Amino acid sequence: MTAWTQLTERVLELDALAGATAVLEWDQQTQMPPKGAGSRGTQTSYLQKFYHEKFTAPAFGDLLATLEASPLDEQQRAAVRLHRRRYDRAVRVPAELVQALAGARTEGFHAWVAAKEADDFGAFAPKLQRLLDLSREYAAIVAPGVAHPYDALLDEYDPGTTVADLRPMFERLATELGTFLDAVGPRPHPAAFDRKLDLEGQRRLSDRVLRDLGFDMQGGRLDKSAHPFSIGLGAGDVRVTTRYFEDNVLSGLGSTIHECGHGMYEQGLPHDLAGTGLNQAAGMGMHESQSRFWENFIGRSLPFYRYLAPRMAGIWPGEDFDPESMYRAANRVERSLIRVEADEATYNLHIIVRFQLEVAILEGKLQAADLPEAWNDAYRRVVGVVAPSPKTGVMQDVHWSSGYFGYFPSYTIGNLYAASFAQCMLRDVPDLWSHVERGEFAPMLAWLREKVHHQGIRHDARDLFRSIVGDRDPVADLVGHLWSRHGAVYGVSR
Amino acid sequence: MTAWTQLTERVLELDALAGATAVLEWDQQTQMPPKGAGSRGTQTSYLQKFYHEKFTAPAFGDLLATLEASPLDEQQRAAVRLHRRRYDRAVRVPAELVQALAGARTEGFHAWVAAKEADDFGAFAPKLQRLLDLSREYAAIVAPGVAHPYDALLDEYDPGTTVADLRPMFERLATELGTFLDAVGPRPHPAAFDRKLDLEGQRRLSDRVLRDLGFDMQGGRLDKSAHPFSIGLGAGDVRVTTRYFEDNVLSGLGSTIHECGHGMYEQGLPHDLAGTGLNQAAGMGMHESQSRFWENFIGRSLPFYRYLAPRMAGIWPGEDFDPESMYRAANRVERSLIRVEADEATYNLHIIVRFQLEVAILEGKLQAADLPEAWNDAYRRVVGVVAPSPKTGVMQDVHWSSGYFGYFPSYTIGNLYAASFAQCMLRDVPDLWSHVERGEFAPMLAWLREKVHHQGIRHDARDLFRSIVGDRDPVADLVGHLWSRHGAVYGVSR
Repeated sequence: MTAWTQLTERVLELDALAGATAVLEWDQQTQMPPKGAGSRGTQTSYLQKFYHEKFTAPAFGDLLATLEASPLDEQQRAAVRLHRRRYDRAVRVPAELVQALAGARTEGFHAWVAAKEADDFGAFAPKLQRLLDLSREYAAIVAPGVAHPYDALLDEYDPGTTVADLRPMFERLATELGTFLDAVGPRPHPAAFDRKLDLEGQRRLSDRVLRDLGFDMQGGRLDKSAHPFSIGLGAGDVRVTTRYFEDNVLSGLGSTIHECGHGMYEQGLPHDLAGTGLNQAAGMGMHESQSRFWENFIGRSLPFYRYLAPRMAGIWPGEDFDPESMYRAANRVERSLIRVEADEATYNLHIIVRFQLEVAILEGKLQAADLPEAWNDAYRRVVGVVAPSPKTGVMQDVHWSSGYFGYFPSYTIGNLYAASFAQCMLRDVPDLWSHVERGEFAPMLAWLREKVHHQGIRHDARDLFRSIVGDRDPVADLVGHLWSRHGAVYGVSR
Repeated sequence: MTAWTQLTERVLELDALAGATAVLEWDQQTQMPPKGAGSRGTQTSYLQKFYHEKFTAPAFGDLLATLEASPLDEQQRAAVRLHRRRYDRAVRVPAELVQALAGARTEGFHAWVAAKEADDFGAFAPKLQRLLDLSREYAAIVAPGVAHPYDALLDEYDPGTTVADLRPMFERLATELGTFLDAVGPRPHPAAFDRKLDLEGQRRLSDRVLRDLGFDMQGGRLDKSAHPFSIGLGAGDVRVTTRYFEDNVLSGLGSTIHECGHGMYEQGLPHDLAGTGLNQAAGMGMHESQSRFWENFIGRSLPFYRYLAPRMAGIWPGEDFDPESMYRAANRVERSLIRVEADEATYNLHIIVRFQLEVAILEGKLQAADLPEAWNDAYRRVVGVVAPSPKTGVMQDVHWSSGYFGYFPSYTIGNLYAASFAQCMLRDVPDLWSHVERGEFAPMLAWLREKVHHQGIRHDARDLFRSIVGDRDPVADLVGHLWSRHGAVYGVSR
């Protein structure tokens, strides 16, 4: 067996373990009965342990070294680079630290659930402090030589992304969004769309839209879960979930379209590269660009509601659905407290606060006890609102309680990428909005398939983005889109 | 770490792998989209490979040898015996044979699907011959020193069961069943119960009955699948499936009750013995005794239909359900061609034919090409019917195409065990039928929990059976039950 064949064998084995773990995860969130939690936790951690053992085996490192000294084609070199980067990161972290982090994450999560319920940050602080300490230790070890300790964490979710890149971009975005929100702020909001619609009808609507957008139901499925998510279980098997609210059909549908964007990315990956490791998404920011493109750029447009209204009337024959009213309701903008409920503009301010705080945390400038005050200061300054208590403030999201520092920026990176993709697509597909109105989403999906999905992780996301959009300014593209879409709804312009 | 602790660690790891594999299997049969088949196959075979590697590791054998030379309590000794038996079997089989069998099973299955569809045994014969050859080779290697080569296969599903035990018992049973069927044969059949009932209502009925019987929905769930099955995914997570037919509510409900019996056994295993390996069912025959007890002895009784009728009327308010009619329809008896559609009596004749043919196969007296004729001879002699072609004859069942020789007897062993359990239970729970009529199934479940479920696999099934029923004759108990239940319906008695 050549070294390359040995590598692909090992990668297939690792992928099988990762896929099996994903099946267990999907099942846990959508099917598992409550009493299965204990045995499922044990099964999942054993599979992760096997994965880690096989991935960090010295033989795997030797294989990479052999391949690095061998003549390879460009694709093989990209694959070896990818595995080298991950292997080096993985072997640098001592088993005790991996274990300590896993324990602190479990404890942190459980403490957060109880502390959030009780609105008592003090009860959460010691566990959070432990996670801060371990995450700083992890960052210092996992990627020595990076310019900023936070880069070591960013690299995990968006390989190659750095504080030096993000800071100026996010500062500019915050300023521009502030100007936009100030302009919209005093205007009256459009009416909400809160028609009561039965959940079974909503399920049928989600199913219909998912298929129309281009999600392949022969290679995936749609289910319900408490928190919508999407997950690839292997080639030909991508699962998306959503949720429904009786008086908010647009919220559930938005979740469906968002997860559909993720799901279609997974379905479109270069599955013929199985065994190379290149058949994966190019990072979390790129993943988020796919969900946001469909959810926001397409899914909140007036042509989309013109496509949607007759389909809704087909499901609820007695009801009248006005595209314009739904469109206006879906494009309400407001400085608000809760990230997951935020509009398309304000959302990014939530992320920018997280970014600023996480950078300071990694620089050792903030301890757990400092966070509620630092949070309120940053929200007052950046978002323009202040939480009445930690429950809707620093404790609103699960990420930190599970030790996920460095993940938040991906959301806004996704919005920025999506904004520039949309502008390029308008140029390449000039009658895009007529397609949307007619429910023809294939041209947009084909564009993303070719330029993004089929590329897998051959390149760093930043390089892939640049190769697609050239020298476009994603901040200008995102802010331009917001002025044009929401400004029109509110009757303001730059 | 003591050797005992090391053993439990290894067993927990193996159980986690087996549980994960079971999750993948359940998902494949109930949830997976069609295009996921390829990647799922890969994932499952890697998990099985890891299991095999860990289970047959020489270190595991050394550990067993250390424990065999150590002072242990009775339970520990039972655990070590169990693992020793399985370990010795596993390490005797060379990897090439394991691989050849796996390949022949996959090929055999696919050939069978196509050949059955085309009703062309010749197209299946070469693949079947390969499975016969490999299975004989396997039997000769896996358990040297057994009295009959077929014992080596029986031992896999029902540890300790032998041809010497089964042959006289099955011969006696065949004779007794023949007498019974001859008595019933000329009589007119009760009317079928073929009311058209919507599938959603049938689902609700199955759900209700499952809960009433005592299946714990906090630690399990009920789904639909093409072929009903039940599977334990880990402590606190047992899944059962069923299917529904619009014009045959009793068939779907029978499947539900059957799988519920299996599922309650899994739920009642001694989960506090996790890590010993003793927290498993005592073989497939004992498993089948649990499903058949509930499906047939309870689920086809008149008191059960008296419990059921008002519940059905609650679901289908306009309909009238007569317990007596349903009871009579469910107890139709007839010499018939298809095992899975056979009644409670004839069913065992199908199994006895399989047993006779499998014994002859393992003795090398039958080759694949001989099977259609041997099948027809045996059916004419034992069941009293002859298939018009191989589709409804030798190719009716999947088992042989997947290389499962030695499994069939478990079904009748289960019926025999169940018959004696039922007689013992009537003695211990004298007002059993009043309980059933009132929908109170807890006393019967409690009896099985204590005597069967909680025992796990501390003992061989045969020994467990004897410790529960004493010197009762299961053939007499089964035949007696059939005369009393079906004979009454047909108006015949011994």
